[in-house]
Amino acid sequence: MEETVHFELSIEFLEKFREGIESRNRDFILSSLENVPAADITLLLHNFNEDESKYVIDQLDTEIGAKIIIDLDEDVRERFLRNFSPSEIATFVNKLDSDDAVDLLSELQIKEREEVLAGVDSPEKEAHILDLLRYDEDSAGGLMAKELIKANLNWSVVQCIEEIRRQRENVSKIHAVYVVDDNGILLGRVSLKKIILSEDKVKIADIYDENVVSVETFVDEEEVANMMQRYDLEAIPVVNVQGKLLGRITIDDIVDVITETAEEERQLMTGISADVEENDSIWLLTKARLPWLIIGIVGGLVSAEFIKFFEEDLTRIVAIAFFIPLIQATGGNVGIQSSSIVVQSLANPTIFEHGITKRLFKVLIVSLLNGMVLALLVFCSNFLFGGSINLSFVVSIALFSVVVISSLVGTITPLVLDRFEINPALASGPFITTTNDIIGLAIYFFVIDLLI
Amino acid sequence: MEETVHFELSIEFLEKFREGIESRNRDFILSSLENVPAADITLLLHNFNEDESKYVIDQLDTEIGAKIIIDLDEDVRERFLRNFSPSEIATFVNKLDSDDAVDLLSELQIKEREEVLAGVDSPEKEAHILDLLRYDEDSAGGLMAKELIKANLNWSVVQCIEEIRRQRENVSKIHAVYVVDDNGILLGRVSLKKIILSEDKVKIADIYDENVVSVETFVDEEEVANMMQRYDLEAIPVVNVQGKLLGRITIDDIVDVITETAEEERQLMTGISADVEENDSIWLLTKARLPWLIIGIVGGLVSAEFIKFFEEDLTRIVAIAFFIPLIQATGGNVGIQSSSIVVQSLANPTIFEHGITKRLFKVLIVSLLNGMVLALLVFCSNFLFGGSINLSFVVSIALFSVVVISSLVGTITPLVLDRFEINPALASGPFITTTNDIIGLAIYFFVIDLLI
Repeated sequence: MEETVHFELSIEFLEKFREGIESRNRDFILSSLENVPAADITLLLHNFNEDESKYVIDQLDTEIGAKIIIDLDEDVRERFLRNFSPSEIATFVNKLDSDDAVDLLSELQIKEREEVLAGVDSPEKEAHILDLLRYDEDSAGGLMAKELIKANLNWSVVQCIEEIRRQRENVSKIHAVYVVDDNGILLGRVSLKKIILSEDKVKIADIYDENVVSVETFVDEEEVANMMQRYDLEAIPVVNVQGKLLGRITIDDIVDVITETAEEERQLMTGISADVEENDSIWLLTKARLPWLIIGIVGGLVSAEFIKFFEEDLTRIVAIAFFIPLIQATGGNVGIQSSSIVVQSLANPTIFEHGITKRLFKVLIVSLLNGMVLALLVFCSNFLFGGSINLSFVVSIALFSVVVISSLVGTITPLVLDRFEINPALASGPFITTTNDIIGLAIYFFVIDLLI
Repeated sequence: MEETVHFELSIEFLEKFREGIESRNRDFILSSLENVPAADITLLLHNFNEDESKYVIDQLDTEIGAKIIIDLDEDVRERFLRNFSPSEIATFVNKLDSDDAVDLLSELQIKEREEVLAGVDSPEKEAHILDLLRYDEDSAGGLMAKELIKANLNWSVVQCIEEIRRQRENVSKIHAVYVVDDNGILLGRVSLKKIILSEDKVKIADIYDENVVSVETFVDEEEVANMMQRYDLEAIPVVNVQGKLLGRITIDDIVDVITETAEEERQLMTGISADVEENDSIWLLTKARLPWLIIGIVGGLVSAEFIKFFEEDLTRIVAIAFFIPLIQATGGNVGIQSSSIVVQSLANPTIFEHGITKRLFKVLIVSLLNGMVLALLVFCSNFLFGGSINLSFVVSIALFSVVVISSLVGTITPLVLDRFEINPALASGPFITTTNDIIGLAIYFFVIDLLI
């Protein structure tokens, strides 16, 4: 066991493997990759260029090759597949489940896609793929695989086992057998445990479980993820509006949805526009980061113009400038905190949402409390460090107002975005943050102009 | 099916249900919750207070009650369980898998824990729980359940089925049968599919799969999550250093780990200190938000003192103040972007990490490019809006330096935190962000002092 699973890569091994590829040493490559899980080979190949990787994959079993290709990041895969002919791609598609096959095909040009489909062995798989290509990528239909074990309500256990035998090659992981009526309408499920423990002649109708949670094809992937998580499911059947069983979604795909959603949210929050990683090219990294930075710069320039308006006040009392960072940072911090709390509760909805008024009232109270504590803190500190009482007072009043208003803006923005079906996490992102900064500054100078 | 699964809550139903509780209408409560999944009842109970919820749970089947209690948020559960006597808690523990039982028991006071354990029916379960209580909560040992199906290598399929029958009540979800030798050392696994399709007299030794991925008890939960995700596993066996099979971790627990990790990271990034939700009390919300805000305030006050140092420059050229927000915001933005990219690559490690020098060199190039674009943009804009050429030039130089230095600081900080085994996501959090703000400001005034 030890040697097959704990596949440890050392720099030495990597060098030997590189030599193996260069000298086209097929035996060495095959023997060193024997029993290594496909996912580990994928990681290994990240250290080689496309030609080298293709050489390795060409030596391996097609099934392993197919798994490696599906494991690749979408953008890497798209580039990598350009080295393969449509008929080569078709041999991989033959080994893939329909959901993975569709992911791969949807990245190809239409012409190439047709050529690959023509090379698919089984007409059944081709029909599955064509069917799945119709669904939106981010919906339950786009996530499901057609491969599943289906049993008629009137079957006996032995007929059900025969069906499992017939499909043993097609359905790699069986979580349960889905029970349907003569029209293919989903009625329930039977666990494999129950099948093992039941006598051969027992009717499925007598042992199946009616309480099965299913989703319709159009349901959004995040909603599917929520359901599978809430009910601790390992697979969920997908039905059409009539309740007809069409496919199933397995938990591994949902785990990917969950991690991608979290990553996407972080990217929105940190204002990185494209899906970049540290080892992407310098050009890609620069391009992904510039948009937010430019938004920030524009915000900064607007702030500059804004402060210029109050040049007279500033010339009179230079100390006003001292507290610009304080006001701006606090406004930003309060805004991000508020949005973050709302975004979180939008992501984990309880059944009854509190009305908007009740929500805002609560936020108001919290911000009044926070605002008072902070304003007092700043006032005392300014007083102790010998600032002018007058200015200290004004700064504290301004800070208090900034905390309260930024809280409300930070709370309302994600709710409004969500209403317009825009990802509410954007509220912690660059554009809104920059806007908050400007609002904070405006409040500061407004209060100063009013009171000084 | 329809009526049991799509449990839709309306305000009307909620009101009727509330009346049902108030009038202690047991029949109404039982009939309206018939066939409703425990997870949905948990959501429903969020709308009732502790006494009302306890009344509902008392009416339900203990098994459903146990599931509801395990579904609750940790802090809610801790409070809620105070209404139950140790012997009542023990009846729930009797219905729980060992991993859930341990989660529940570890929240109790030692004395109460002993009393609950005394009420546990099966000595085997008690031993399991006592064993599991030893492991760190965040390790594979702390996540695993002891319930699993274990078969000796020399058994036949029929013996294996007998074992499944014997354990049918204990092991609710069976993913595979784990194969061990006479000393209990894990050798491999057999899928239920294979068991169903094999003849009764076939030896396990002839059909089992040696390629099983396992983890040792001390492995961190995030590492377990990474492994299960990488290899698309639904369950992973846990072994001790000798390779002896001790338990298994199922994917539903790992899904929870993944979402919790993402949430934790967001909280670090948005500077909310405790695990709060929108519907927590005002006091809790205020308390969770204040620490970051205070850090920000202290940063702001330090900035104020800092700027005071350059009061003379400011009095001479008030326009210097105009660009404080621009510099500060850009420094913050660049810093967060840089850390975010590093944090992401620390979370998804490839096998070979590039050395620190290569990493920093790349960051340097990207920041030089970004810095040049932004500095040019600001210079042109200032020029067009009629600012002084001299000051525009200085602001652009300062901005360029801020972009480069904040990039490097943003990149190095998470790497250093990670080296000291502190969660690197903290680098996008309040403390570091505030530090970045001050550094940005320092660079600005340093450049001004130097060039004007």
